[in-house]
Amino acid sequence: MRFDIISVLPDLLTSPFAHSILQRAQKKGVAEIVVHNLRDYATNKQKSVDDYPYGGGSGMIMSVEPFALCIEKLQNERTYDEIIFMTPDGETLNQGIANQLSIQKNIIILCGHYKGIDQRIRDIYVTREISIGDYVLSGGELPAAVVVDTVVRLVPGVLNDETSALSDSFQGDLLDAPLYTRPAEWRGHKVPDVLLSGHEAKINEWRHDEAVKRTQERRPDLLK
Amino acid sequence: MRFDIISVLPDLLTSPFAHSILQRAQKKGVAEIVVHNLRDYATNKQKSVDDYPYGGGSGMIMSVEPFALCIEKLQNERTYDEIIFMTPDGETLNQGIANQLSIQKNIIILCGHYKGIDQRIRDIYVTREISIGDYVLSGGELPAAVVVDTVVRLVPGVLNDETSALSDSFQGDLLDAPLYTRPAEWRGHKVPDVLLSGHEAKINEWRHDEAVKRTQERRPDLLK
Repeated sequence: MRFDIISVLPDLLTSPFAHSILQRAQKKGVAEIVVHNLRDYATNKQKSVDDYPYGGGSGMIMSVEPFALCIEKLQNERTYDEIIFMTPDGETLNQGIANQLSIQKNIIILCGHYKGIDQRIRDIYVTREISIGDYVLSGGELPAAVVVDTVVRLVPGVLNDETSALSDSFQGDLLDAPLYTRPAEWRGHKVPDVLLSGHEAKINEWRHDEAVKRTQERRPDLLK
Repeated sequence: MRFDIISVLPDLLTSPFAHSILQRAQKKGVAEIVVHNLRDYATNKQKSVDDYPYGGGSGMIMSVEPFALCIEKLQNERTYDEIIFMTPDGETLNQGIANQLSIQKNIIILCGHYKGIDQRIRDIYVTREISIGDYVLSGGELPAAVVVDTVVRLVPGVLNDETSALSDSFQGDLLDAPLYTRPAEWRGHKVPDVLLSGHEAKINEWRHDEAVKRTQERRPDLLK
């Protein structure tokens, strides 16, 4: 699958896409991630991509034209399944949305910045508006990286161990049980005996009970 | 304020911290962000920081010792207000949590990776567990960057326009009204007349009505 990300700060996204699973997915040819500099599509002499808000108020608003030109150039090259705008007032990202996006082929992500973007971009081009949570960030770049990371790791062939994505938190209805690795005792703190017992049925029962307990304590909403 | 981030992939975080508001905050001396390579605290010959899970199962678990050594080294240098572990089963980040953290002085953030971390790190060291949302990521690095970005922009002196953070979505109870900038007409799509009227009271009334309408449509939960 292919992601085209349009940003006024493309360099901000260099390192997240050059490491870990996103790096591996690109090397394997499973995912292509292209970041476009919005400023390359500015049409005025100053190469500006924003302007003062109509009606007054603080902060700058990103203009229609540069986004429009970049989106239309991309649309001339291939068909896009979604044009996503990262915005705090969009639908909140969850694992279900990530699953939906992971079966798409080509996705454009628009990163807002400054005070916001001209509403006409949203009205004319955007097919889906997504928020990563109820908090304010400096721009849409980190949210775009979050969407790409959640989605790409679901594409078959990206994770080494296919069972790994399925056993993640939020793919089932329960949070993970506590996890332990060696040493069995560290400065007096011991791993629960059952995990050292080798008794598979008892281990599974303990894990299920702990997962239910943790979910009840922390996220009772997931059990509904 | 100071953030110490402990990660097995410190290079993943280079570009997000070197641009935009986080770069400005560091240049101004308002925020210090230090990323530590967990592998530097590995004590075995292979410099490994993870091991197989007790009780079996897929994925690797991050060991106690390297995290413990790095945290204790930092604690010897200064006092920390919070040691945060980024985890999908933590409390969900929101603007209230960001506001709380923005008045702290020193914060450590632990980035998990692989299948998860040994529960003893959470039991012994961690003071707060935070999730950025109900979706699975490859590691805690992007979530750590999200927390740092949401928090640092709230620190006085970071944003140029002090009113800007206050008028952001989620600082009040309403989402933003639609925003527009020049041109007033673009390919036949016009800016609402009221915004061009110069009539401040009418503009404020329109913006309030639109904000209420958008909040009712998209996030009725915020109005409760």
